Amino acid sequence: MVRFMGFLTNLLRAMQSRRGGDMQFLCHRLLSERGEASQTAVAQEIINSYRAMGPAQRPSFFEMLCREFSPDAAGILRASAEYQKNPGTKTLAALSAAVEAPRQELIRRINTAPGGTETLVALRGDLLDVSRNGNAGAFEPLDADLRHLFRSWFNRGFLRLERISWQTSALILEKLIRYESVHEINGWADLRRRLEADRRCFAFFHPALASEPIIFVEVALSSGILGELEPLLDPHAPVSDPSRADTAIFYSINNCLKGLRNVPFGNFLIKQVVAELAAEFPNIKIYSTLSPMPRFAQALADTEDKDGITHERLVRLLEDFAPSLTSATGKRDPAEAFLRLLGRSRERLPSGALRRALVAPLERVALAYLTHARLPAGAGKAGKLYDPVATFHLSNGARIERINAFGNLRPYGIEESFGVTVNYRYVPDDLEENHERFVRGQIEVSRGLHRELEAVSAAWQ
Amino acid sequence: MVRFMGFLTNLLRAMQSRRGGDMQFLCHRLLSERGEASQTAVAQEIINSYRAMGPAQRPSFFEMLCREFSPDAAGILRASAEYQKNPGTKTLAALSAAVEAPRQELIRRINTAPGGTETLVALRGDLLDVSRNGNAGAFEPLDADLRHLFRSWFNRGFLRLERISWQTSALILEKLIRYESVHEINGWADLRRRLEADRRCFAFFHPALASEPIIFVEVALSSGILGELEPLLDPHAPVSDPSRADTAIFYSINNCLKGLRNVPFGNFLIKQVVAELAAEFPNIKIYSTLSPMPRFAQALADTEDKDGITHERLVRLLEDFAPSLTSATGKRDPAEAFLRLLGRSRERLPSGALRRALVAPLERVALAYLTHARLPAGAGKAGKLYDPVATFHLSNGARIERINAFGNLRPYGIEESFGVTVNYRYVPDDLEENHERFVRGQIEVSRGLHRELEAVSAAWQ
Amino acid sequence: MVRFMGFLTNLLRAMQSRRGGDMQFLCHRLLSERGEASQTAVAQEIINSYRAMGPAQRPSFFEMLCREFSPDAAGILRASAEYQKNPGTKTLAALSAAVEAPRQELIRRINTAPGGTETLVALRGDLLDVSRNGNAGAFEPLDADLRHLFRSWFNRGFLRLERISWQTSALILEKLIRYESVHEINGWADLRRRLEADRRCFAFFHPALASEPIIFVEVALSSGILGELEPLLDPHAPVSDPSRADTAIFYSINNCLKGLRNVPFGNFLIKQVVAELAAEFPNIKIYSTLSPMPRFAQALADTEDKDGITHERLVRLLEDFAPSLTSATGKRDPAEAFLRLLGRSRERLPSGALRRALVAPLERVALAYLTHARLPAGAGKAGKLYDPVATFHLSNGARIERINAFGNLRPYGIEESFGVTVNYRYVPDDLEENHERFVRGQIEVSRGLHRELEAVSAAWQ
Amino acid sequence: MVRFMGFLTNLLRAMQSRRGGDMQFLCHRLLSERGEASQTAVAQEIINSYRAMGPAQRPSFFEMLCREFSPDAAGILRASAEYQKNPGTKTLAALSAAVEAPRQELIRRINTAPGGTETLVALRGDLLDVSRNGNAGAFEPLDADLRHLFRSWFNRGFLRLERISWQTSALILEKLIRYESVHEINGWADLRRRLEADRRCFAFFHPALASEPIIFVEVALSSGILGELEPLLDPHAPVSDPSRADTAIFYSINNCLKGLRNVPFGNFLIKQVVAELAAEFPNIKIYSTLSPMPRFAQALADTEDKDGITHERLVRLLEDFAPSLTSATGKRDPAEAFLRLLGRSRERLPSGALRRALVAPLERVALAYLTHARLPAGAGKAGKLYDPVATFHLSNGARIERINAFGNLRPYGIEESFGVTVNYRYVPDDLEENHERFVRGQIEVSRGLHRELEAVSAAWQ
Repeated sequence: MVRFMGFLTNLLRAMQSRRGGDMQFLCHRLLSERGEASQTAVAQEIINSYRAMGPAQRPSFFEMLCREFSPDAAGILRASAEYQKNPGTKTLAALSAAVEAPRQELIRRINTAPGGTETLVALRGDLLDVSRNGNAGAFEPLDADLRHLFRSWFNRGFLRLERISWQTSALILEKLIRYESVHEINGWADLRRRLEADRRCFAFFHPALASEPIIFVEVALSSGILGELEPLLDPHAPVSDPSRADTAIFYSINNCLKGLRNVPFGNFLIKQVVAELAAEFPNIKIYSTLSPMPRFAQALADTEDKDGITHERLVRLLEDFAPSLTSATGKRDPAEAFLRLLGRSRERLPSGALRRALVAPLERVALAYLTHARLPAGAGKAGKLYDPVATFHLSNGARIERINAFGNLRPYGIEESFGVTVNYRYVPDDLEENHERFVRGQIEVSRGLHRELEAVSAAWQ
Repeated sequence: MVRFMGFLTNLLRAMQSRRGGDMQFLCHRLLSERGEASQTAVAQEIINSYRAMGPAQRPSFFEMLCREFSPDAAGILRASAEYQKNPGTKTLAALSAAVEAPRQELIRRINTAPGGTETLVALRGDLLDVSRNGNAGAFEPLDADLRHLFRSWFNRGFLRLERISWQTSALILEKLIRYESVHEINGWADLRRRLEADRRCFAFFHPALASEPIIFVEVALSSGILGELEPLLDPHAPVSDPSRADTAIFYSINNCLKGLRNVPFGNFLIKQVVAELAAEFPNIKIYSTLSPMPRFAQALADTEDKDGITHERLVRLLEDFAPSLTSATGKRDPAEAFLRLLGRSRERLPSGALRRALVAPLERVALAYLTHARLPAGAGKAGKLYDPVATFHLSNGARIERINAFGNLRPYGIEESFGVTVNYRYVPDDLEENHERFVRGQIEVSRGLHRELEAVSAAWQ
Repeated sequence: MVRFMGFLTNLLRAMQSRRGGDMQFLCHRLLSERGEASQTAVAQEIINSYRAMGPAQRPSFFEMLCREFSPDAAGILRASAEYQKNPGTKTLAALSAAVEAPRQELIRRINTAPGGTETLVALRGDLLDVSRNGNAGAFEPLDADLRHLFRSWFNRGFLRLERISWQTSALILEKLIRYESVHEINGWADLRRRLEADRRCFAFFHPALASEPIIFVEVALSSGILGELEPLLDPHAPVSDPSRADTAIFYSINNCLKGLRNVPFGNFLIKQVVAELAAEFPNIKIYSTLSPMPRFAQALADTEDKDGITHERLVRLLEDFAPSLTSATGKRDPAEAFLRLLGRSRERLPSGALRRALVAPLERVALAYLTHARLPAGAGKAGKLYDPVATFHLSNGARIERINAFGNLRPYGIEESFGVTVNYRYVPDDLEENHERFVRGQIEVSRGLHRELEAVSAAWQ
Repeated sequence: MVRFMGFLTNLLRAMQSRRGGDMQFLCHRLLSERGEASQTAVAQEIINSYRAMGPAQRPSFFEMLCREFSPDAAGILRASAEYQKNPGTKTLAALSAAVEAPRQELIRRINTAPGGTETLVALRGDLLDVSRNGNAGAFEPLDADLRHLFRSWFNRGFLRLERISWQTSALILEKLIRYESVHEINGWADLRRRLEADRRCFAFFHPALASEPIIFVEVALSSGILGELEPLLDPHAPVSDPSRADTAIFYSINNCLKGLRNVPFGNFLIKQVVAELAAEFPNIKIYSTLSPMPRFAQALADTEDKDGITHERLVRLLEDFAPSLTSATGKRDPAEAFLRLLGRSRERLPSGALRRALVAPLERVALAYLTHARLPAGAGKAGKLYDPVATFHLSNGARIERINAFGNLRPYGIEESFGVTVNYRYVPDDLEENHERFVRGQIEVSRGLHRELEAVSAAWQ
């Protein structure tokens, strides 16, 4: 029996390596086809083979693509030498041709068959999975080529904004349920509430991925800016009259396809949705997000970080609140009191006086985190803001409008953001200038937060 | 008055150069925008400015794009040196980045605004016009970048085949009239006949160019292969029952957008149309073109070419027909008789015995031309077949099925092809093998032409 | 307090009657508008008022429509007299005009406003509800006018067959869940299974009711005829390859809108779906239903009916099975044994030998019921088949193909049909002849049921 | 030979009468089919037979429909007697059933087959043609039944307004060219100009007649009201910027299908188009027609009419203009001068002083004609306005805004309207009241025409 199992295992390995071998043969063949006559057929075979592959077989396939279809070193050296001797249009064109990986043409040809784009996007998703498991460097050239082509193919000019409503195909709606990762959609009744008359949902689609949203945003139409999440997520919340709304709240933005990571469209989406809403609802004057701070808890918990970003500055920030925090908790050190309470809040929420005492320090520390906490050196993004959501919206030209303690009391809200939510406000006329300022290192906040920001900045020095 | 005219001219030049200057500024700005915040707005301005440009201003704009947005020579030299020192993934990535013209990113960003793709395709069309007027080399880098991106954007995977019928929008039909350059469409009644029940028309569309066909093909459904063009082009020809047809004749294929020259889709088109027709008409068994030989007259006329391609071989090919040609014309030298007749045919068509006497030698010489005449050295395409249409279909895997003397008696048919038409037949199961053979230098003809081809080949030695 | 309640009730009644009064005024106004200028506005008001009405207000509105918009008796008498005196085209036209209720024109005019058709269909649904509660006769004239117009408006020529799939709008899919009354759909996962690759669902739509299916049918593609329901309703059943199916099973047909009762389209639907399936699946040769016998249990239970339809004949039918039934149950009277078991089966299913012993007698009694049990005199449908589903399919020209004991073991299946299912088979070429025979009183069964039918018929005498 | 021709003629007659006989048989069969099983097939055969009929065969077919499918006189007499004896719901229902021609059900059943509606509409068109040729009375019962059903089927609630543009299918655009009868469209270039950015065209469609417009209106967007037709019909007129327009001119309304005559939708169309335009162009404040006076010339020419409507009143109306008319023409009697000039204008247009002298009297007489000329007794429409276009717009609630001498100088404009055009203005808020007034006999004119109308009315006494 054991021998039989061994026999089976060997057979399986042989088949798998044969498929690997097939793929090598097929890819070379696809690339060498001079007429386009049979390209589509070979491309189709590659696509089918890839789809039939299990996760275990993929790394060797990726490895093959990296090894076999990279540019020829000798050719590059020759072209480099030529260019150095005689820099000009012709030698540059030759060098340019020499450095382009044949892989790019291979990928373009795979894309000619039906289902090509879909498969290639899935392939990059798989590649990112594999890379996370410690092979990152190894497959970088393949990833670079895919990214390069995807940035071309998924150019904003080729994306189509579409409204998603209860009239949309179930096939697409089902994907919203699957892809919503900010605020989970609990089944069809929940989804339906999010598509009622006082909500809007928009997605970008790409013509080659007909029933696959690329990115989508959920919007609530309200009276004034909302800081609390719960009413928005309650499937039984009454439906309000959208014609009376003066505010649009963007409460969830989701990238759908892992394979398109780092191919950015989110900022285009928000701006185009603002334009759509402005056209449909002349009464809406305020465009704001209701956003999480996904690394707030992580940043705070890291009190021992070597740069001392948070802890000591925290103490300074909390000094003003010392009396109320100590009286509410009985602890003498306000910082300690604060952190304990927050830590405990993961189990059960503070209430009454304790809760009231926490609001102001929580919002102040949150503002400090959003505007001053930066990634440590060494991460490749040194000096960038710690919070990715803040980076996204501020770089788009939005400003920090409001911070809301106890705005998201769902488990993940408390876990990641200590329950705090942020409103980033998009003032259409200010976006460009705010964006420019942000590039120069300046962060815009609403008038109501000016003094608070000063206090925070002073304490942070 | 003269002074005033001079003043106006200067003002105009200043405005034009200012626009040129504006464009330089705008392009740099578009490229330097770090956030995507205001990209679309700047891209839109560039698009509008380009559209407002007259032909006289374009060369300096193209020149600016070539000059200002080429890769930095110093950077390339540095990256080359690094790569030479230490060839590897990282240095290759750096070199690759160094050689890519910033122009490519610029073009990608222009494409993010509405109308971007359309404008960029038009721009390349303009560039090809300008280049034909003696500036070819100068703008090659810009053309290379556009071509590179277009090959990505207009990848087969993004094209959509659509049937064109009398139900199609007039906006699109009007473009068929405009773009048909093989057999001119004389107004709406002519077009309508070409879309009747016994015809089919298919086009490729690209999602970013919604009402712009990229390439289209016109098909007639018939009983058996047709060699004569006239019945197909007669707007008053009776409409036959398509369900009785056993043959599909592809009688016109047109690329629509000059800006997409050398971005090939024609072969994909024919194959997909064959599939569509097969699905709709189970009775259709034969797929064939009815094609011109656009350089036949040119090749024959060139009897004094330095390689002596045609003339002396022609004599040999005509020897068999000597008696009939001399008796029909009264000339003793058959080659002379033949050529005179053909030359004369441009003015008026031979008829009766003369015409009958010409059929066989005309078809034989045409076969020789199609299969043996090759481009002279020096043209960059040395050794390729002389006839571009033959190259296209044979490379696709079609075979030469039939040659038809006096098949196209329209002025342009006589002028270019001495009235001869060719049927290239697509036998789906043979396409791949034929294509491979063609790549190796072998040309497939129908059984009926085997002996004729042997005779021709013998004479050609 | 009590007085205040009384005051409120009076106020409400006044408002209601005022609305009633409004409606009377509005309806007269709509009918008297000579130009069509303001018709739409008045129609819209009537529609809005009707929608705002509660169930309690409707009867008096219906009553008003019956009273005020009936034809004028004096006018009819006059026209009748004229016709009698001088029967001819003119007097007939006058009489015809006199007998048509002005209500019909009123209804046609209500239909000119947006939402008109929808509201009128809902109105008839409400009318049927009210009529069932003992007012049947009173509103018959109104019902007759609605029915008359609906038969015109919902003429087969205006209905559009559409496939329903997972790609269909959630708005419509949701209605399938709501309207499915034969085999309840338990949520979206259940629905999704019924729309997988091995199923088909088709509905008729009317252009004025854009997102409202009128009637729909669910079809399973299978190998051979299925007698058991459970595999079809199991949401986890594996999806089979539809291209291998040779049989289409119509397992659920649902009329969606109560207001369209007695406006028949079901037979058109089945025939058109057969045509659609034949076009898509050339391998499918057998079209069959899997149907309930909704009044089987009721008919059997009624052993004491005054015409003695069932009981004594039952005894005769069971005589052949006496030995096995008595041995399996220990009862001496087989009929008694049989009925006890069936009665008991409502609580728990017989199994093993008992179950095996029941199959044959159950199927025989079912066949007898389907083919011989007829409605008692007095019901207005005297002599018609007892089973409405049998009437529907047999009248369509289908035949009884198979009877399946223990085919539907769901509670409602056991409750209504004693668990028995029937396959009615549609043989396209036989439909017309079968239909004619059925009209003459003859019922077609499959060859396999011929002898059984003879036995049953003999016993029934 | 003559005998052979006679033989052929007889054969043809036999075949035709056989087809007539077939139809009689088929129609009876369609009506007697109890199940709907084979209805569609029989209906299809009737449709095909009707389409194959030549004009010569139709009258006997119509005659058969009138004869064979009228209600049964004996049945009517019986039901009348019953009703007289006992007038009530039941006897009324019976009488109602007795008077309805079986033809109606026959027509409804014909409509169940594909192409049914289209064929029935064509049939009524043919019927109106035949009736005009002196058989009017004979086929009235058939026409009444068709009209009755069409009023139900083509209820406003089932029509769909669609914009027609250059993006519309050529199949539909071609029909615009065919159906435009007010201002002929001379080919595709002319049509195209009428669909440019400064024009709008809308049509009603019915779901059963997918590519057949029912009625359409052509609109020009302009600055201020236009009185002259020529600029609107000039295919080379420059395209103006629609966003600057403040006025919409409805310059052509066409009913497309003769078979729908007297099934009115025109008024619905104008009102809905006004709503569409208001939504698209907030700047448009004025909605006006540019209309002909199609019977003006006929009415004026009829100077000898027995009621003396025009002539003597004309003299009074022209008295004010006597000096200028006599000086311009040299004739002493101004009325004579006027009519001579107008009569002559059919050959060539007056110019200079003559033309200037004609403007005021022409517009005054036109106003008199529009507002006072009424149809003579005996026409069945006694007392109605003489001008059908005026009746249509005034009854819709529009007012006479302006009258324009020499507004339409095309041959048909001069022939029918003596070159005069009228602007009927639709002021949305006034429509209802104007309509009511018109019903009571009052005609609204613009403020600018008030004094003129007084003068005209005084002279008309």
